[in-house]
Amino acid sequence: MKAQVLHDYDPALKASSWVSLEEVPDPKIVKAADVIVRIGGAGVCRTDLHIIEGIWRPHMDPTGGALLPLIMGHENAGWIEEVGPEVEGFKVGDPVIVHPKVTGGTCLACRRGHDMHADGKFPGLDSNGGYAEYLQTSARNLVALPRTLAPKDVAPYSDAGLTAYRACKKAAQQLLPDQSVVVIGAGGLGHIGVQVLRAMCAAKIIVVDISDASLQLAGHGGADHLVKADGGEVEAVLSLTNGKGAEAVIDFVGEKGTTHRGLAMTRPMGSYYIVGYGEDIQVPTVDLIISEKNIIGNLVGTWAELTELMSLADRGLVELATKHYSLAQANEALQDLNAGRIKGRAVLVP
Amino acid sequence: MKAQVLHDYDPALKASSWVSLEEVPDPKIVKAADVIVRIGGAGVCRTDLHIIEGIWRPHMDPTGGALLPLIMGHENAGWIEEVGPEVEGFKVGDPVIVHPKVTGGTCLACRRGHDMHADGKFPGLDSNGGYAEYLQTSARNLVALPRTLAPKDVAPYSDAGLTAYRACKKAAQQLLPDQSVVVIGAGGLGHIGVQVLRAMCAAKIIVVDISDASLQLAGHGGADHLVKADGGEVEAVLSLTNGKGAEAVIDFVGEKGTTHRGLAMTRPMGSYYIVGYGEDIQVPTVDLIISEKNIIGNLVGTWAELTELMSLADRGLVELATKHYSLAQANEALQDLNAGRIKGRAVLVP
Amino acid sequence: MKAQVLHDYDPALKASSWVSLEEVPDPKIVKAADVIVRIGGAGVCRTDLHIIEGIWRPHMDPTGGALLPLIMGHENAGWIEEVGPEVEGFKVGDPVIVHPKVTGGTCLACRRGHDMHADGKFPGLDSNGGYAEYLQTSARNLVALPRTLAPKDVAPYSDAGLTAYRACKKAAQQLLPDQSVVVIGAGGLGHIGVQVLRAMCAAKIIVVDISDASLQLAGHGGADHLVKADGGEVEAVLSLTNGKGAEAVIDFVGEKGTTHRGLAMTRPMGSYYIVGYGEDIQVPTVDLIISEKNIIGNLVGTWAELTELMSLADRGLVELATKHYSLAQANEALQDLNAGRIKGRAVLVP
Amino acid sequence: MKAQVLHDYDPALKASSWVSLEEVPDPKIVKAADVIVRIGGAGVCRTDLHIIEGIWRPHMDPTGGALLPLIMGHENAGWIEEVGPEVEGFKVGDPVIVHPKVTGGTCLACRRGHDMHADGKFPGLDSNGGYAEYLQTSARNLVALPRTLAPKDVAPYSDAGLTAYRACKKAAQQLLPDQSVVVIGAGGLGHIGVQVLRAMCAAKIIVVDISDASLQLAGHGGADHLVKADGGEVEAVLSLTNGKGAEAVIDFVGEKGTTHRGLAMTRPMGSYYIVGYGEDIQVPTVDLIISEKNIIGNLVGTWAELTELMSLADRGLVELATKHYSLAQANEALQDLNAGRIKGRAVLVP
Repeated sequence: MKAQVLHDYDPALKASSWVSLEEVPDPKIVKAADVIVRIGGAGVCRTDLHIIEGIWRPHMDPTGGALLPLIMGHENAGWIEEVGPEVEGFKVGDPVIVHPKVTGGTCLACRRGHDMHADGKFPGLDSNGGYAEYLQTSARNLVALPRTLAPKDVAPYSDAGLTAYRACKKAAQQLLPDQSVVVIGAGGLGHIGVQVLRAMCAAKIIVVDISDASLQLAGHGGADHLVKADGGEVEAVLSLTNGKGAEAVIDFVGEKGTTHRGLAMTRPMGSYYIVGYGEDIQVPTVDLIISEKNIIGNLVGTWAELTELMSLADRGLVELATKHYSLAQANEALQDLNAGRIKGRAVLVP
Repeated sequence: MKAQVLHDYDPALKASSWVSLEEVPDPKIVKAADVIVRIGGAGVCRTDLHIIEGIWRPHMDPTGGALLPLIMGHENAGWIEEVGPEVEGFKVGDPVIVHPKVTGGTCLACRRGHDMHADGKFPGLDSNGGYAEYLQTSARNLVALPRTLAPKDVAPYSDAGLTAYRACKKAAQQLLPDQSVVVIGAGGLGHIGVQVLRAMCAAKIIVVDISDASLQLAGHGGADHLVKADGGEVEAVLSLTNGKGAEAVIDFVGEKGTTHRGLAMTRPMGSYYIVGYGEDIQVPTVDLIISEKNIIGNLVGTWAELTELMSLADRGLVELATKHYSLAQANEALQDLNAGRIKGRAVLVP
Repeated sequence: MKAQVLHDYDPALKASSWVSLEEVPDPKIVKAADVIVRIGGAGVCRTDLHIIEGIWRPHMDPTGGALLPLIMGHENAGWIEEVGPEVEGFKVGDPVIVHPKVTGGTCLACRRGHDMHADGKFPGLDSNGGYAEYLQTSARNLVALPRTLAPKDVAPYSDAGLTAYRACKKAAQQLLPDQSVVVIGAGGLGHIGVQVLRAMCAAKIIVVDISDASLQLAGHGGADHLVKADGGEVEAVLSLTNGKGAEAVIDFVGEKGTTHRGLAMTRPMGSYYIVGYGEDIQVPTVDLIISEKNIIGNLVGTWAELTELMSLADRGLVELATKHYSLAQANEALQDLNAGRIKGRAVLVP
Repeated sequence: MKAQVLHDYDPALKASSWVSLEEVPDPKIVKAADVIVRIGGAGVCRTDLHIIEGIWRPHMDPTGGALLPLIMGHENAGWIEEVGPEVEGFKVGDPVIVHPKVTGGTCLACRRGHDMHADGKFPGLDSNGGYAEYLQTSARNLVALPRTLAPKDVAPYSDAGLTAYRACKKAAQQLLPDQSVVVIGAGGLGHIGVQVLRAMCAAKIIVVDISDASLQLAGHGGADHLVKADGGEVEAVLSLTNGKGAEAVIDFVGEKGTTHRGLAMTRPMGSYYIVGYGEDIQVPTVDLIISEKNIIGNLVGTWAELTELMSLADRGLVELATKHYSLAQANEALQDLNAGRIKGRAVLVP
C-alpha cells in the first residue's frame, strides 16, 4: 500500500518536508479479532508535529529502540477491509471510526471501561498509524458510523474530539443551570468542547480566546459570552460571575500563563480542567485550601465516550470544521498546521 | 386583607363554589426573620382540588384538629411588603418567588440542603397560603426574581415547576448522549420537564401522551419523538430504543396503568421516576432483579433547585403557559381546572 | 470427564435424586481466548433447585429448545488446565475464580464495565457448568486467586458472594457514619453482605432474621444490632432509627412480606435494595412520592467487583462458611440445601 | 469573664508569652438565635501560632482595621449557658460542640450545605473565640454531644478533626477494596484521618511519616503499612502498589517536598488531596494529562460532617489524643505546641 513515512526527527521543525510517500507492505490480520480498515480520513494533529520534533520520544521510545521509520496518524476513520476469524458485529464495507488505543480487554482498566489507561499500542505514536491506505487494528477499537457521517468528515473526533468531549462531559455532569463554565481556547479542540457543553448542560458558557475568528466560531457553537484574551480576561470573567469566578474552567491551551489565569477564574469549590499542555502549573498550597479548588487532569476518552460523541455528531449537536488534503499532500497539511493556516482540523484523504 | 377561604370539604367536588372571598386579618411578622409577601400570583394546583375533596386531611390533620377554615395556595410569588428585624438581603418591594416549605434551617435535613424533608409548615396545605393579598413566610423561603420574570408569570414554578425540575434533573445528571429518556404525560408538569431535559442533557427525548395538543406542546419544548398513548405506546418506545427501552422513564401521570407500562419501557439498569400518583406500583421482585431496574421517588425540590429553575426561566430555557384569573375568580379557576379547561397552569392575580 | 448431569425437571422437588454422575466428553478450546478450568470447587445454589423445578425454563429456554441434558454449576473456581493460543496473563496451574457471565468484551455493556448486562452465556444455567471435572470458559471470565485462597473455599463468591457484594457496595457508597443500614436475612448471601458493609462503611448495621443462629453469625460479622423477625421487626427498626427508619434497607429474602416491611423500615430519601426474590412488590405511588424513597434492583456483579471481593477475602475482611461434598455427592448436597440443612454454602469438590 | 487576649503580633515567635489573662465583658445575646456557650474545652491549634505570627493578617484584616486585641480559640465545645428567644432544640446545660463558621443560613452556599464557603464570621480568627469562659455563637453552629463525649475531650474535632474527616471522606467515597490510600503525616490531623479511613472504606491504608511514634500511633489506628519518610518513601509506596502508586494520596503536611512526592505516589486516574500547606505545588501540565491525575483542595467541613464525625467518636471508631491545660496555662500550651512537645492535641479547660 501507499503510506507517508517519517524517517527522521526534526527538532526545529525547519525542514520543508518531513514524511515521504512510499510503497510499504500491506498490514495483515494477526489475531483472531484483528481488523484491517481502509482509511477514509486520517486527522493531522499538533501531536504529529510534536512527534516530528522528537518530544514524544522519551515516552514512546524510552529504551532507545528504533521507533522510526513510523507511519503517523492516530485519528482514523474508514471502512472495514478485512476481518479476523472471530470478529463479530462488523462486516467488510462497514464505515467505522477507530478508537486510538488498542487494548486487550482483560486488564482491570479495560474491565472498568478506562480504555486509555489500559496497556496497549497507540498506533500513529508507538506503531504504524493511518497516514496510509490501510490500518491494522482490533474489533475492540471500532465504533460503527451512522449513515449520516462520512469517515473523512469525522476522523478527528477519534482523538481531538474525544479529548474535548471527555473533559467537557466531566464538567457538564457537575454543572447546574445557575452556574458558569469558562472555555479557554476555542480552537481545534475548544470549538468542539463548546458544542459539547451546550448540548449537555444548562450552565452559562464563557469563552476566552485571543482570536476574534475563534470567538465568533464559539458564538455559533452556543457560547453565552465571548471574552477577548487581551490581558483583562480574568477581570472580565470575574465580572460575569459575581466576582467569584466560574464553577468550571476548561483550559485547552495550557501555556503562556493560562494555567495561572484559569485558576484565578475558578470559583471556590470549583474545578479547573487541564487539557492543553506546555507550561507548569504552579500554585501555593494555601490558595487551593482556602478556596477548596480542584485541578482535574484529562486524557483522551473511552470507547464508550467515542460512541457518545458519535451520537452527538449524528444528530448535528456537534459539528467539526475540517480541511481535506490528499495523502500525497501530507507535508503540505503538516506545514499548514505548523504555520497556523488551518481553521478547524486537517484531514488526509487517501 | 381580602382572601379566598375554604370552610368545608366537598368529597364529590359537586358544589358550584368552594371558597369564599372574605376580609380576614392581615398576617403579621412574628419571628425575627419573618417576611410578609404581597401576592403577585398564586398558582391553582390539582392538589387544591384534592384538599377540597379531603384527600390530604389524614396527612395534614391526622389528629382530627380543625384545619378549616383554610386559605389555600402553595405556589406563590410577589413582592416584599414587610421584613422582620433580622432579615438580610431583601428589602421592601423586591420581587420574589416563595419556596413552599417553611423550614427552620437547623435540622439535619436543612443542613444537607433537603428542604422539603425538613420539619416545618407547608402554607396552603397545613396553614394559610396565598389565595390572598398577603402571605406570611420566612426570609429562608424567598428566591429573588430577576427583572425578566414577573410574579404572576412564574408563581407555579414554586411547586409544580420545582417538582418537574427535580425529577428531570436527577435523570439528566445520569443520562448520556447515546441514551433515551421517556416523559409520560406532557401536561402541567410534563411540559416543563421536557424543557428542563432539553436544557440539561443530550439524550433523545421521547414523549408519550394521550393528547395531540400536549404532544404538540412537547414538540415545541424540544422532544425528539412524540408517541400517542393509544395502547401501543410500550411497543412504540421499544422500537425507538433498539428493543430494550429507555435508560430513564419519568412518569408524570402515575395512574391508569402508566406505572406498569412505564416500567416496561425502562431498559435494564435504567430508572423509572415516579412523579404523578394515583395507582399502586405492582411488580414481581424477580423482574426488578433480572433487569436491575430502579424505581425512584420524587418530592418537590430544594430551595437551591428553585434557584436553578429560576435561572433557566430567566434565560428563556424554560417557559410556562399560564392563564390568569383575579382573586375574586378563584372558584372559576378551580372549576376550570376540575373540568380540564386549563392548558398549562392557572394563576390567581390579586 | 465425570460430570453430574440433569436430564429431567422435577417441579415438585420430590425425587430422591436429580442429577446423575456420568462420563461426558471433555470440553475443548474453541476460540483463541478460551480456557479450560479444572474445577476445584463448584458452589451449590438455591438457583440450582429452581432450575430443577423448571422455574428458569421460560428465561433460559424461551423458544422451547432442548436445554436438557444440562450440567449445572454457576459458582466455579479451580486451576487453569489449558489455554487458547491468544490467552495472556494466565498459565496452566494458576488458581482462578470464574465470573459467571461469558461475555465478548465488545458490546457497549461490556465497554462500560457492566458484564452481567452484556450478551453472552451463563454456564450452569443456559450451557454446561461446573458440576464436573472441567469447565470451558474464556480468559475474560477469570480472576486470579491470591495464594491465601483455595478454590474450594471461595467458589460461592463467584455468584452468591458477588451478588451480596454489589448490592452492599451500592449502599455503602451512599451511607454516612450517622446513618443506618438494615440487612433483612443473614443467610448465605446476607452473612457475606454484613461483612461487606462492615468493611466498606461506618453506618450502624441492623440485621433482621428469623433464625437465632443467623443472627449470631451476623453479630460475629460486625452487625451493631440484631432484630428477631417475630412480627415486631418494623417497630424494632424504627425505634433504633429515631422513628424514621434506615437510610438503606437490603432485602436478601424478597418473600413472605419482607418487601412491604422492608419499605416500611426505609427512611424518607432512603433506598430499599431488593436482592432476594419471590413475591411482588406492591406500593402506592403516593407513598413513594411523599417519602421520596427509591427501590433499587440488583443483579450479580461485574468482573471488577469480583476482583474487589477477592481483595476483601484475601485480607480476611470477608469470610465464607462452606460445607464440602464430593462431586459424587451432588444429590446429597442438593437435598441438604432443599431441606435447610446447610449453614453457609455447599460446595462440590471433584 | 476571664479570657486570654492577644494584643500584639510576634512574627518570630520569640516572646515568652503571647496572650494575657484578663477580665473582659461577658458576651451577650444579640440576635434571636444567638447562644452563649460556657467553654468546656478550647483546642490549641497551629493556626493560633500562625495568627500570632501575623500570617493570617492579610486574610482576616485586609483593610488594615484593628483586629487586635483578639481572643483566639476556634475549636470549642462546652455547655449551653443562655439562649436567644428563637432558639429551638437546645436548652441551658446541654453539652455541645461548636462548628467554627458562623453562618446566616440563607445564602446559596448555606442552602447547598457548604457552610464553610458561606459568608460569616470565624470566631478565634476574625472575632473573639474560645480562649475564655464564654463564647457567643448561633444555634446554627451547635452540634449536640452524646453523653459519651465530654466537651474537653472533643473540642479539637470542631476544626482539626473536621478538616481531616472531610478530606478522608472524599477519598473514602471513591476508594474500592482492591485499591490503596496513602496518608502523608500522621500527626494531629493525620492520626484522625487514618481512623476515619479505616472506618469508612476497605482500601489498603499506607501511612508515611518521619516519626516512629506517629507511625506507631497510625498502626494502632488501623494502617496496613507504615513507611518511614527517609527519602525512599516514594519507592516504598510504589512497591506496595504494583509500581503504579495509590488511587488516593492525602497530604496532611504540604511542605518540605511532600507535594512533589505525594503526586509521584499517585496512580494514573488517582487523586492527590492537599490538606496541609506551606509550599507551592509545581507540576508540568503534561504530567497531569498523561496520567489524568487530580489535585483536590480541602477546607474544614460542613455542619453535617461535624455531626457525622461525632457519630464516629460516639461509637469509639475515632479517638483523639489530648493534653489538657487550664485557661491560665494558655501560653504554656502554645509554647509546648511551638516546641513540638504535644502528642495529639492541646486543649484549654477553663
